[in-house]
Amino acid sequence: MFFRTAEDESFMRSALELARQAGCMGEIPVGAVVVREGQIIGRGYNQREVLRSPLAHAELIAIQEASRALNSWRLTGCSLYVTLEPCPMCAGAIVNARIQRLVYGAFDPKGGCCGSLINLLALELPHQTAITAPVLEQECSQLLEQFFQGLRA
Amino acid sequence: MFFRTAEDESFMRSALELARQAGCMGEIPVGAVVVREGQIIGRGYNQREVLRSPLAHAELIAIQEASRALNSWRLTGCSLYVTLEPCPMCAGAIVNARIQRLVYGAFDPKGGCCGSLINLLALELPHQTAITAPVLEQECSQLLEQFFQGLRA
Repeated sequence: MFFRTAEDESFMRSALELARQAGCMGEIPVGAVVVREGQIIGRGYNQREVLRSPLAHAELIAIQEASRALNSWRLTGCSLYVTLEPCPMCAGAIVNARIQRLVYGAFDPKGGCCGSLINLLALELPHQTAITAPVLEQECSQLLEQFFQGLRA
Repeated sequence: MFFRTAEDESFMRSALELARQAGCMGEIPVGAVVVREGQIIGRGYNQREVLRSPLAHAELIAIQEASRALNSWRLTGCSLYVTLEPCPMCAGAIVNARIQRLVYGAFDPKGGCCGSLINLLALELPHQTAITAPVLEQECSQLLEQFFQGLRA
């Protein structure tokens, strides 16, 4: 869980910027980027309410954009950065897309399936994705806490 | 795993018909329908290769169509019928969409996460989905076997 690269914080800051965009729209602030050879090829932020879609999580939107960029369902050699530990759907999409490495910011004790409730990426599935976490945990979790405090205010 | 309704075989036959469409296009033959109050409101079949998307599984396409039909990310009171046991991504999407009941045809011992490798729907997630399986298991698994035999021929 603790292998890191020099670029991790920089790409997580890009994901945080996208998460803030979600928050400005009244969405739970989660952002994600897909990176290949040092370049961002997919961006996403949570748009469940705006798009009225249960599939519109940051990770799925970023994966879809990266697939279009590569014209393939196989995101071989790609890393996905996301500000919050993925849910089961997004963890499964990461495996289905053959993403090489997942980097996430904050843990999600209630719904996270990449180490918290369970680690889906450790199942005997057709592909294995490495995990690095947490990266910029404090910034990522603070953004979520501030959002939920705002809702209760 | 064995609570059934009189309509289950009929809706599974609709899902099988969609699975055959996938097979005709050279895709792994999996089909799905979302049902609400006895009506099909979402249809999908696997289009991973055609759409070059790791997200283009039958279940996600059917859920997306049903969400558009209801103009909501909450598919409350809906059942999802699919010819093959869902993968982690699709199992997670079923929970995220608040689907009430999942009915599937064939088990998937290598990748199924609704009873085979694991039962994701039994996790302590924000929503619980009931499972009925198998329904028309022989027809559903034969369709897949014939497809893979054809690939090897």
